[in-house]
Amino acid sequence: MADLQRLSLNQATTQNWSIKEAVEGCVRHGILSISLWRHKIHETGLRESARLVRDAGLHVSSICRGGMFPSASAAVRQEKIQDNFRAVDEAVELKADSLVLVVGASIDVPLRDARRMVEDGLATLAPYARKCGVRLGLEPLHPMYAADRCVLNTIDQALEMASPYNSEEVGVILDTFHIWWAPDVFQQIERAKGRIYGFHVSDWLVPLPDILLGRGVMGDGVIDNRTLREAVDRAGYSGAIEVEIFNQAIWDTPGDEVLAKVVDRFITLV
Amino acid sequence: MADLQRLSLNQATTQNWSIKEAVEGCVRHGILSISLWRHKIHETGLRESARLVRDAGLHVSSICRGGMFPSASAAVRQEKIQDNFRAVDEAVELKADSLVLVVGASIDVPLRDARRMVEDGLATLAPYARKCGVRLGLEPLHPMYAADRCVLNTIDQALEMASPYNSEEVGVILDTFHIWWAPDVFQQIERAKGRIYGFHVSDWLVPLPDILLGRGVMGDGVIDNRTLREAVDRAGYSGAIEVEIFNQAIWDTPGDEVLAKVVDRFITLV
Repeated sequence: MADLQRLSLNQATTQNWSIKEAVEGCVRHGILSISLWRHKIHETGLRESARLVRDAGLHVSSICRGGMFPSASAAVRQEKIQDNFRAVDEAVELKADSLVLVVGASIDVPLRDARRMVEDGLATLAPYARKCGVRLGLEPLHPMYAADRCVLNTIDQALEMASPYNSEEVGVILDTFHIWWAPDVFQQIERAKGRIYGFHVSDWLVPLPDILLGRGVMGDGVIDNRTLREAVDRAGYSGAIEVEIFNQAIWDTPGDEVLAKVVDRFITLV
Repeated sequence: MADLQRLSLNQATTQNWSIKEAVEGCVRHGILSISLWRHKIHETGLRESARLVRDAGLHVSSICRGGMFPSASAAVRQEKIQDNFRAVDEAVELKADSLVLVVGASIDVPLRDARRMVEDGLATLAPYARKCGVRLGLEPLHPMYAADRCVLNTIDQALEMASPYNSEEVGVILDTFHIWWAPDVFQQIERAKGRIYGFHVSDWLVPLPDILLGRGVMGDGVIDNRTLREAVDRAGYSGAIEVEIFNQAIWDTPGDEVLAKVVDRFITLV
């Protein structure tokens, strides 16, 4: 089993909680790390968010999220870059392991052009992140999000996009929900050695209740999270393991119930 | 633009029509080829189905579908193989270009084992299909179907699975809905050269209305069907181009309206 000390609550799992509530929840359930979402950081305020996690002694495994680079409008692309600069600043203040980049997509931009816009955005952002000491984690999302959310869809593609950069500056975030299906997932994980900045677990429910809000708690679906975690470990990753579950039914459940289940399933299945 | 003579109506597009109605619809709209589904063949009867397409002078581009190999039960796997033998017989009677294999999946079978069961099923089926002169077309389905419908999810994986067989016996069916997102889709299509048995077009709607019944008519979504068709042509494929659209709203539309739109969009966008 995975070391329980590696468990991190990705705040998306307790969407109805503020940062204060999520931090207190982690403390109650013995969870040592947390991943914060920027809309929650903005609600609470950056300095107050930093104070809350620091006072609770929590480690910040990541900030979600930067990215969202593609747009048909050059002005909008520029705004998005500026927003990514601010995300880097927030990652500094919160001492996060990395800034997660969900690279974005636009139905007004052909796939190939959108992928180029992501490369361009990354090229603009990376020098600033390097200067600030913030690692950028490219997260490949499931191919079903390629049209409207994320044009980065496989580990190999993320590694290719990271390859111009130092392995301490740009890496990949591996999320079992997004990668579990790939015929060569274990080879891809092996190729990611030295570039893995984060690892997320959840489950794929059958039938999938919803494309966006249909993830399950580990054990409620078909993903073999443990075998994937072992592969990620073998590829040299020993950092936090975030539980990230987008699911309306989970969000509607009291947070303490969710956290108790998350801890239990982490122990038995991750 | 693609030669209109290559257009084939995959019967899934007009789900509420019988084979007789679909055949008559093709004739009315100048469509020269049709792909028949087995549940429709069984409704009408095999010999009557063959008579209908023959009398109308239609070419049968494929039979949908064989496959569905994985199961936790050996007895069920055996039944499925038997059903595949019958599907081969039907393809013979209908003089179909190929039998489409949607290989299946089972939530009770781990992904890796399910993929092995597909290889085993194919190994049992292929000699019989060869003897009957029926080509088996492996269709990779979108990764979002990996849990419960099809554990074959990329062109490369299908080519790997086809590789032990003669290129005239086992090949691949390329469907833009399933393959459009892949970062290396054009390289994969190139690698499929000599093994392409069929090509399907439709569109990916945003937002996706439904995982299973959410496909759109070409032009209503984000897929660049023409560029993909040109790539498939360059890879040496010159056969039928099936329009296959699973969509409840399309099914609820009068078939003649759907066919008129399909022909129009085929001309302008494929």
